[in-house]
Amino acid sequence: MTLPLAITMGDAAGIGPEIVAKAFRDAPEVLRGCFVAGDVGTLRRAAAIVRGVGGVELPVAQLDQPAEALSAPTGCVPVLQVIEPQEEMAFGRIQAQAGRAAGDCVFWAARAALCGELAGLVTAPLHKEALAAAGDPYARFPGHTELLQALAAEHLGVAVAGLPVRMMLANDELRVVLVSIHVPLRVAIEEVTTGNIEATLEIAHESVGAALRRPPRIAVAGLNPHAGEGGRFGREEIEIIAPAVGRARARGIDARGPFAPDTVFMRGRGMAEFDVVVAMYHDQGLIPVKYPGVERGVNVTLGLPLVRTSPDHGTAFDIAGSGRADAGSLIAAVRMARQLCR
Amino acid sequence: MTLPLAITMGDAAGIGPEIVAKAFRDAPEVLRGCFVAGDVGTLRRAAAIVRGVGGVELPVAQLDQPAEALSAPTGCVPVLQVIEPQEEMAFGRIQAQAGRAAGDCVFWAARAALCGELAGLVTAPLHKEALAAAGDPYARFPGHTELLQALAAEHLGVAVAGLPVRMMLANDELRVVLVSIHVPLRVAIEEVTTGNIEATLEIAHESVGAALRRPPRIAVAGLNPHAGEGGRFGREEIEIIAPAVGRARARGIDARGPFAPDTVFMRGRGMAEFDVVVAMYHDQGLIPVKYPGVERGVNVTLGLPLVRTSPDHGTAFDIAGSGRADAGSLIAAVRMARQLCR
Repeated sequence: MTLPLAITMGDAAGIGPEIVAKAFRDAPEVLRGCFVAGDVGTLRRAAAIVRGVGGVELPVAQLDQPAEALSAPTGCVPVLQVIEPQEEMAFGRIQAQAGRAAGDCVFWAARAALCGELAGLVTAPLHKEALAAAGDPYARFPGHTELLQALAAEHLGVAVAGLPVRMMLANDELRVVLVSIHVPLRVAIEEVTTGNIEATLEIAHESVGAALRRPPRIAVAGLNPHAGEGGRFGREEIEIIAPAVGRARARGIDARGPFAPDTVFMRGRGMAEFDVVVAMYHDQGLIPVKYPGVERGVNVTLGLPLVRTSPDHGTAFDIAGSGRADAGSLIAAVRMARQLCR
Repeated sequence: MTLPLAITMGDAAGIGPEIVAKAFRDAPEVLRGCFVAGDVGTLRRAAAIVRGVGGVELPVAQLDQPAEALSAPTGCVPVLQVIEPQEEMAFGRIQAQAGRAAGDCVFWAARAALCGELAGLVTAPLHKEALAAAGDPYARFPGHTELLQALAAEHLGVAVAGLPVRMMLANDELRVVLVSIHVPLRVAIEEVTTGNIEATLEIAHESVGAALRRPPRIAVAGLNPHAGEGGRFGREEIEIIAPAVGRARARGIDARGPFAPDTVFMRGRGMAEFDVVVAMYHDQGLIPVKYPGVERGVNVTLGLPLVRTSPDHGTAFDIAGSGRADAGSLIAAVRMARQLCR
C-alpha cells in the first residue's frame, strides 16, 4: 500500500476500541500500514484491557499525520488524534458524547479518503441511538452508510439519490450484494424493481470486478420459492428480475439467473460457480453469509468513491470493557479493505 | 425396529430407483429392516446401473410380504412388488405411466403405514408433471405431502383442513420447520398469522419432541430484518409473532422469539441453543439448511399420523440412468425416519 488505511475507533462505550487494539496485537501483518482515527486516551484504555486479558504489552503510538502509519513498528497501536481529547466514557451505555466522537472520527476519515490521503477506511461499530442522541448532523443518518453516502455526494457535487450504494456482505467463502436492506419485508418486495436490480448489478460488477481485476461472475437470486417455478409461485422473476438480468447482460455484465433462492447461495459457496450472488432482500442474503458464524463476516459499502469495510456485528454493549470481544470480523474487514484497495 | 420401513421407488425415469439401490449397497446397516415398495424390474435395472458403476454384485430379492424385510440379508435390494409389473421407462422424460406407478407405490405404502403394517415410509423423488399427467386421482395432488395428507385425513375420518401438516427440513446440524411452503413470497407474508404460527409450534413441539423424547427448545424467526427492530422495519413481530409465541408458551411449549432471522439459524446450528427453528417462509428456512450442501438435507412431513421422510432433491432427469446420482440424502432420510420411529 502506498497510502495508509484508517480504522475509525467506533463508539467508546462499545467493543470498538478493544477489538481495534486486539487486531493490532493479533494480526500485525494484516494491520501493517493501518492506523486508528480516534482518541489516544480511549485507545490507551482499550489497550490496557486487552493487555489485562492477554498479558502482552501493547503500547499506543501517537502519530502526527496519517502517512506515519506506513512506517509504524508492529507490536503497537498507532493512533492519530482526529478529534478533541475525550473524557472517559462509561461502558455499555448510550451517551451522546460517545456517539458524537464516533461520528466525528468517521467524518474525518471519510473526508481524508475522499481527498486522496487514505487508501480507504475500516469502521469499528457505532451505536445508532448514541449517534442519534448526538444531534445535528448525526441524527439525520441511521448509520455509517448513509453518512458516507452524504459526504461522498457532497464531495462529488451530486444529489444523494444520484449516488446509489449497496451493501455487500462477505466471508472467505461467499460474497452477497443486497438490492435492499433495512426495510420491512413487504417494502423490500416493492423495491424489487428492474431499476434497482440493474443498479445493483452494475455496482456489483464494478466493485467486485475492481477487487478481482476481472469481470465477476454474478448469480442473481429469485424472489419467490423455486424462483417462481415458471410463474406458479409468483411472477416477479418473469416480469422484473429476468428482464433486468437480460439488460445487464446486454451491457456486458456476466449476470445469470434468476436462480432458486434456496440453492443459489450453496452454489455460490467457495466462489466456484459464481464470484458473487445478488440477493433480493436483507435476510435472503444475510442468512447464508452469517450462518457459518458472524465472526467471519465483513460488511462492504459498494458504490462509494472510497473503500469502506466494517465488521459484521455491532457495539456489543453487554460485553464491552471485558476484553472478551472477538476481533476476527474486524481483522477480516481490514483484509478485505486491502484487497479492494489494490 | 419391530416393523419394516418402506422406501417408495419414485419416478422410474428419474434417479429414484438408482439412489435406492445405491443406498442398500453403501449403507447396509442403516438400511437394515427396510424394503423397496415398487417394481422388481425397475429395481433390477437400477441395480445393474449401480453395479456397472461400482463393480459390486447387487442382487434384487423379491419379498412376499413386508415383514420379510426384517430378516433380509444385507448386500441385496429387497423389493416388494406393490404394483403391476412395469414396462421399461425411458430415462429423463415425463411419462404418465411413470407418474402413475410412482403415485401407486406411495398410495400402497401410506395405506400400509396407516394400518400399522409399517414403521413409516421414505419416499424417493417423484416428478410433479408426470404425476399430473397420470390423471385422476394424482392430478389433484401437487406432490407427496398433499397426497399423504388426503389419505391420512380419509383414514382418520376428518377433513383435510383439520389435519394441518408442516414441512421440516433437517441435516445433521440444523432442523427447520416452515410456516408456509410453495406460495409466492407476497402470499407467504399473508400466511404469517397467529393461527398458522401456533399450529406450526404445536406440530414442531409434538413431532420433534417424539423424536428427542423430551420437549424440544424451539426458536422462532422474525419476518422482517432484525425481527423488525422494535417496529421500525415492520410490525408483524409485535402484532402477530410475539403473541403466537406467548400463547404457545402458556400451553407449555418451550418456544422463544421472534429472533432476528439473519442470526437465528446460526444460533440453531449444532442444536446447542435450540433443537429446532421455526421459519416464517420457504426460503428463510431452506437457505440455511441447504447451504452446507443438498446431499445432507432431509425433508420430513410433520403432523401426519405416520412417519414420512424424503431426500431433499428431485428426480434429476438430467443425470438419471448414469449411475452418478448421490444417495447421501436418501440415506440421511432413512436414518431420520428410524429416529422418528423409535
